[in-house]
Amino acid sequence: MASRLVAIESADDPRIADFRDIRERDLTGRQNRFIAEGTVVLRVLVEASHGGRFATEKVLLLRNRVDGVAAILERLPDDVPVYVAEADVLDRIVGFHLHRGVLALGRREVVGTELVDRLPERSLVLVGCGISNHDNAGSMFRNAAAFKADAIFLDETSCDPLYRKAVRVSVGSVLSVPYERKGTALDVLTRLAASGFAIWTLSPRGETDIRAIPPTDRMALVVGTEGEGLPPALLERFQSARIPQSEGLDSLNVATATGIALFAMSSAAKLI
Amino acid sequence: MASRLVAIESADDPRIADFRDIRERDLTGRQNRFIAEGTVVLRVLVEASHGGRFATEKVLLLRNRVDGVAAILERLPDDVPVYVAEADVLDRIVGFHLHRGVLALGRREVVGTELVDRLPERSLVLVGCGISNHDNAGSMFRNAAAFKADAIFLDETSCDPLYRKAVRVSVGSVLSVPYERKGTALDVLTRLAASGFAIWTLSPRGETDIRAIPPTDRMALVVGTEGEGLPPALLERFQSARIPQSEGLDSLNVATATGIALFAMSSAAKLI
Repeated sequence: MASRLVAIESADDPRIADFRDIRERDLTGRQNRFIAEGTVVLRVLVEASHGGRFATEKVLLLRNRVDGVAAILERLPDDVPVYVAEADVLDRIVGFHLHRGVLALGRREVVGTELVDRLPERSLVLVGCGISNHDNAGSMFRNAAAFKADAIFLDETSCDPLYRKAVRVSVGSVLSVPYERKGTALDVLTRLAASGFAIWTLSPRGETDIRAIPPTDRMALVVGTEGEGLPPALLERFQSARIPQSEGLDSLNVATATGIALFAMSSAAKLI
Repeated sequence: MASRLVAIESADDPRIADFRDIRERDLTGRQNRFIAEGTVVLRVLVEASHGGRFATEKVLLLRNRVDGVAAILERLPDDVPVYVAEADVLDRIVGFHLHRGVLALGRREVVGTELVDRLPERSLVLVGCGISNHDNAGSMFRNAAAFKADAIFLDETSCDPLYRKAVRVSVGSVLSVPYERKGTALDVLTRLAASGFAIWTLSPRGETDIRAIPPTDRMALVVGTEGEGLPPALLERFQSARIPQSEGLDSLNVATATGIALFAMSSAAKLI
């Protein structure tokens, strides 16, 4: 194991340039690269790399974290470099101190087929419209993983879930829950409806109590951004559901609301 | 209305010293004072002040936000000063730009009786142990308000929910949901149990599915901090519940888990 470790002595070393100042930069626009932070996310990335949807390009570790991730590194292909630095060098590289000493550069692989065509006959999916907050995007993936949703569809106005903070908040679930991000929300829902999905938009003024949704083989939960909510055109066109709650309050935080609605729908479908 | 507005021309004006550099300071240690930000929270504070648990000491507004909060100001007692400043002065006072132009200094009043003695015969309460993250504390209050919990009990190791960020994340619910913060978690639970509450600790390894909790007149949901969770001594001593979910994942975010558990218990109690 020790033999594969490459010591980095300078923050200017070109081999670790991808990790420089990552707080301020968003790598996702650059050829599908992204940053994974922390032991749990590294483990998920390495496992996901075996599945073909992602690849691990390089790893950068704080010297004293090497032993703690040894079992994960054994699952890494031999040609993936593992760089190691002392704390002062690592802090200078990444530009801040909250990286927990475990970093990796991942790459999203391009998958040819449409996600909707790869879904099983019985499936529960989550659709996000205009989810621009990285925390909310990450939480949605974490909740989807917890309640066994099969996939997430994001419209083109939602943020890229591989943005560093979303990856971290999702605790790696953006790498384990299949997703697609493209098209308008109406395109996405029309395609899902044509594929047999019962579409349930979530809104404080939704018609059906979320606890009373009739289970069907294919169900899609649709959530919008906090504040604005879903566009009226979508709410009018598809069935709507609400989470019962006190009146006269602001609606629940979108991450919590998504968690509750998935919990209810996953219960109805007897997935949990 | 215009007659009660007092213009502030300098960031050094002693009348608005309480609002200076509020991002870095925590006022809550200082004689129960706290900062309320934003129109919604100001409205809740002014209404809560009529109830006697809180008072509004002063208001500080961005000049162009005055019209938008006129109806709220009408509910303010005449002796509460309302200061107004232009954007450049206001930014210098508070030290950052994300205050949304509506600020107030509130005061928590000391209530003589114990909270548990003021609860109705049928009630649902939330207990937080070691909740040190201000976002999580704020979210717990927001969820408690949404699902009609009657009160929140925090142990002495939890943070003060009147910390600025918790107030903001709660969307003012820390001012509307009665709470008490004192004693050890064991003290709090022992007292609630003696007052007829069925105690349900929440844990990924809890014994009872949260959807199967038998409704009783008095129910307490107990949540711990993310990561550590509740101390084993509490889990062993009281009944435990779990939110069913995928295995092998990190548990849900504590705010989401609390929201789901309250949703389930409030459903069982037919409060929603």
